[in-house]
Amino acid sequence: MADPRFFSAAGPHPLGRLSELSGATLALGADPGRMVADVAPLETAGPTDISFLDNRKYAGAFTTSKAGACVVAADMADRAPDGMMLLIAPDPYRAYALIAQAFYPRPAPDPWIAPTAWIDPSAELGENCRVEPGAVVGAKARIGARCRLGPCSVIEAGVVLGDDCVVGAGASLSHAIVGDRVTIYPGARIGQDGFGFAMGAQGHLKVPQLGRVMIGDDVEIGANTTIDRGAGPDTVIGSGCMIDNLVQIGHNVQLGRGCVIVAQVGISGSTQMGDFVAAGGQAGITGHLKIGSGARIAAQSGVMRDIPAGGTVGGAPAMPMADYLRLSALLAKMGKQKK
Amino acid sequence: MADPRFFSAAGPHPLGRLSELSGATLALGADPGRMVADVAPLETAGPTDISFLDNRKYAGAFTTSKAGACVVAADMADRAPDGMMLLIAPDPYRAYALIAQAFYPRPAPDPWIAPTAWIDPSAELGENCRVEPGAVVGAKARIGARCRLGPCSVIEAGVVLGDDCVVGAGASLSHAIVGDRVTIYPGARIGQDGFGFAMGAQGHLKVPQLGRVMIGDDVEIGANTTIDRGAGPDTVIGSGCMIDNLVQIGHNVQLGRGCVIVAQVGISGSTQMGDFVAAGGQAGITGHLKIGSGARIAAQSGVMRDIPAGGTVGGAPAMPMADYLRLSALLAKMGKQKK
Amino acid sequence: MADPRFFSAAGPHPLGRLSELSGATLALGADPGRMVADVAPLETAGPTDISFLDNRKYAGAFTTSKAGACVVAADMADRAPDGMMLLIAPDPYRAYALIAQAFYPRPAPDPWIAPTAWIDPSAELGENCRVEPGAVVGAKARIGARCRLGPCSVIEAGVVLGDDCVVGAGASLSHAIVGDRVTIYPGARIGQDGFGFAMGAQGHLKVPQLGRVMIGDDVEIGANTTIDRGAGPDTVIGSGCMIDNLVQIGHNVQLGRGCVIVAQVGISGSTQMGDFVAAGGQAGITGHLKIGSGARIAAQSGVMRDIPAGGTVGGAPAMPMADYLRLSALLAKMGKQKK
Repeated sequence: MADPRFFSAAGPHPLGRLSELSGATLALGADPGRMVADVAPLETAGPTDISFLDNRKYAGAFTTSKAGACVVAADMADRAPDGMMLLIAPDPYRAYALIAQAFYPRPAPDPWIAPTAWIDPSAELGENCRVEPGAVVGAKARIGARCRLGPCSVIEAGVVLGDDCVVGAGASLSHAIVGDRVTIYPGARIGQDGFGFAMGAQGHLKVPQLGRVMIGDDVEIGANTTIDRGAGPDTVIGSGCMIDNLVQIGHNVQLGRGCVIVAQVGISGSTQMGDFVAAGGQAGITGHLKIGSGARIAAQSGVMRDIPAGGTVGGAPAMPMADYLRLSALLAKMGKQKK
Repeated sequence: MADPRFFSAAGPHPLGRLSELSGATLALGADPGRMVADVAPLETAGPTDISFLDNRKYAGAFTTSKAGACVVAADMADRAPDGMMLLIAPDPYRAYALIAQAFYPRPAPDPWIAPTAWIDPSAELGENCRVEPGAVVGAKARIGARCRLGPCSVIEAGVVLGDDCVVGAGASLSHAIVGDRVTIYPGARIGQDGFGFAMGAQGHLKVPQLGRVMIGDDVEIGANTTIDRGAGPDTVIGSGCMIDNLVQIGHNVQLGRGCVIVAQVGISGSTQMGDFVAAGGQAGITGHLKIGSGARIAAQSGVMRDIPAGGTVGGAPAMPMADYLRLSALLAKMGKQKK
Repeated sequence: MADPRFFSAAGPHPLGRLSELSGATLALGADPGRMVADVAPLETAGPTDISFLDNRKYAGAFTTSKAGACVVAADMADRAPDGMMLLIAPDPYRAYALIAQAFYPRPAPDPWIAPTAWIDPSAELGENCRVEPGAVVGAKARIGARCRLGPCSVIEAGVVLGDDCVVGAGASLSHAIVGDRVTIYPGARIGQDGFGFAMGAQGHLKVPQLGRVMIGDDVEIGANTTIDRGAGPDTVIGSGCMIDNLVQIGHNVQLGRGCVIVAQVGISGSTQMGDFVAAGGQAGITGHLKIGSGARIAAQSGVMRDIPAGGTVGGAPAMPMADYLRLSALLAKMGKQKK
């Protein structure tokens, strides 16, 4: 059971209802009327909990789990312990996501404006927002309905936020236009000047950064991630992008829809990504590149050239994934050779 | 045109004036009396805007641009579209920087001390500062004239800031002495304890960190960058250094003048850099090294040895750049070989 | 002498007392009654200061130091300048740590609740805490005795902090249970949602993150480091862990006791480390791995497989350290070969 100091479950739900909302089918012997109290990991779940098996690494924990019910792929069903009721799904993690959302729906904020928050008189706040202590909203900023502005978060002058956005503790936004249902995690920095200057032996000359950050709908931006505003064009984050912690996104970068950017990735200025590009942790992508839709970039890659749509690369400098796997095997062998 | 919610242009300026202040020369047919209203990117500029071409990747956008005027290198002049007036400069980006600064000068802050700011009675504030809501200035801190302390920024006890500094939202400084015209971006962390302890199998023993962070003039420190104070000696950032986002600088590190440190670089404790060293994104530099003036370190390098003045390195472990380029070509070829 | 604007020394101490508390032995000619006023680096120490030599790179500075006393290893004693009194220790850095702590003990906070701090009426605060301006403590949070909550730091609802903790400026915690004597540096982000969602071509589906972050005693967590809470299980940081700046720790990660994680390391979800594991700067460790106790991971490694207890690895993909050293030498040679 999730710690009640931090979470409260919206259950119980009958198993049949969980099957319906997740699209997972009830296996033989699974009782649609059985009440399920909560979700829980395989190791700690009890008879009133539902769990899931997605990564086969954890098949052992599945086999010995005390969970009353479990979402699994069809080919794992025969390894279930006696008495466990099964929901069968081709993508158990996705089905579990829907079930867990039913138990833990994202709550609407409890409307409040804390006495120590600062809201400029010219700012506009939508209905039913919650502005936590120490939060700051600058001149002429416009905040949509049902937003939560976390403690000590900062919305600088002129910024626009859509409806149902969450801004985490201590995060800051400037020069940004943000869509609906966007979550900005604690400490994220959005809209500051890009790293633009003319280098020179007598000293570097700052170039005014005159663009914005445009963020679509349903975007998540991780803790302490930094997204610089454009230099003239805008920096653009497409709808549905998932950006992890400590990511750096330079000025003028454009991400299409649904890109997944794992922690500590760096994307240099003016690079453009299509839709549903995935970049693994700590990858670095140089500036002014075009990365096609559906491209996949392995963790720690160093991308220095364009990638066609659907391309997969790894290594530094990055090469096609098949080449990189061959090369890695070869290098591992070379390391073992004593002369 | 830059979004008027965030920017206001100080124009128009006659083309002749822009030529003078940038040092770029008027090409044949360029009318010094023509009024220019604003700067804009090649793609979106209109007849009253001035733009620039620096990276030849964008020559196509230049050729089809509707910009009324443009700063270019001499050898690109003949590719200009009909009717575009040209300013010719050997370094068009530098000339553009000066022109853009003329349209968007850094404004002096509008003096204000927000009611929710906290300024310790023993702190000293120079004239015409702006202290935004939620900002905190500790005991005996000394802030120069015309500084802007952003919302929820924190200046801990004893810190000294020169004139015309900007501290971004949520940034914090302790144990630091800072020069004039320094910009510290949102969320930067300056002056906390270095990572100093004696490791031991029975537990690690913290070593008191007794130095400071000394920052010169005209320095920029990027968003969410961390600079630890010295362990006994000081950590030193020379005048004119440009430090990007999410950079880590360990205790006792010394940077000379004008170093350029790109995003996500890490510099370990006690390493010393000369003047105008450049380190590419995600490079890692181990501790106790000496990096000579003018050295250049490629992105993602792993530097484990001293670099002489003017040296250029790449790879991990880093090697001379020429070697690294040869090696990279060889490895790319090896990856393609099926056995 | 450390800058009195930031530090005040608790001396002087007689040399004999420093010998006792550090376990270092007085060398021939060292007077136990000699009063020592302060600690200082070799380069700047004077006749009333004690210094130390740990890294042989600095033997030159030792030989010419004006320090009145110095902690060194036995085999360096004969290189000391005339008149310097020596304390001999097998691990001079550890002995110095104890001596420096005697001069600069961590002060108990001066109890205060700033008028601009916000403490929810349902929160509990231990005795003699200091809550700095702009700090926020949420509903039902419980803070132990003698904690210092820095300016604009945020303790979200329900969080538990033990005794003698320090939370730096602008840091934030949610969904976390923290032990005693834990130091959280400025801007660290603890307890936010992990990067958990089911990817899909129609859009990604957020998976509720229902675990916590459990932190032991005597832990340090660096500036702007991010530690996500568990997805169902908890994220666990064992007692005595030292975590540097800008580190990313994913959901469900478990660190044993005394792990040392250097700056900019990334540890992906569900990886488990034993006790006293050390990971060098910028290393990346993929998810769902088991890293045995005492394992050592070189800087910038890319760890993709389990590591046995005591194992040492380097490179990306990581290989046994001996292999990596051989391979690096080979690659350096290949880079030099002109064909």
